[in-house]
Amino acid sequence: MVKAELIGHVIRWYRKEQHMSQEVLSGLAGLDRTHYSKIERGLRSPTIETLFRIAGALDVPPHMIIETIEKEVEKSTI
Amino acid sequence: MVKAELIGHVIRWYRKEQHMSQEVLSGLAGLDRTHYSKIERGLRSPTIETLFRIAGALDVPPHMIIETIEKEVEKSTI
Repeated sequence: MVKAELIGHVIRWYRKEQHMSQEVLSGLAGLDRTHYSKIERGLRSPTIETLFRIAGALDVPPHMIIETIEKEVEKSTI
Repeated sequence: MVKAELIGHVIRWYRKEQHMSQEVLSGLAGLDRTHYSKIERGLRSPTIETLFRIAGALDVPPHMIIETIEKEVEKSTI
């Protein structure tokens, strides 16, 4: 199973790759900053709707983020 | 933006393609049947963790479901 911590880790990785702050990303995504911060820390599991908002703000296709999560799940279970 | 109804519609499509009942799919995914039914009807937006459970039960990669949702979003906004 995929864990919220791993999802948060991957989303943080994408944000940092784009040199965005949590403030900028959550603003662009139209998400509450505290809620977004909880997602990165694995304290909240984002919904698919939230995934699409975050991916839109990062300008990457949502399925790419999911594919990265899948690869991380595989790595962690080998 | 992606809507819960569209997400539910795509998940239902995948389930029917595999000739599975809601009972079988929710059982395999380890999800409460009522909760699963609400997802298909667009009354609940599934989390990424729930997406991985559903995809596992359907034996398809989670990102494939997301890619299908992306295509449907594109169609509905053209």
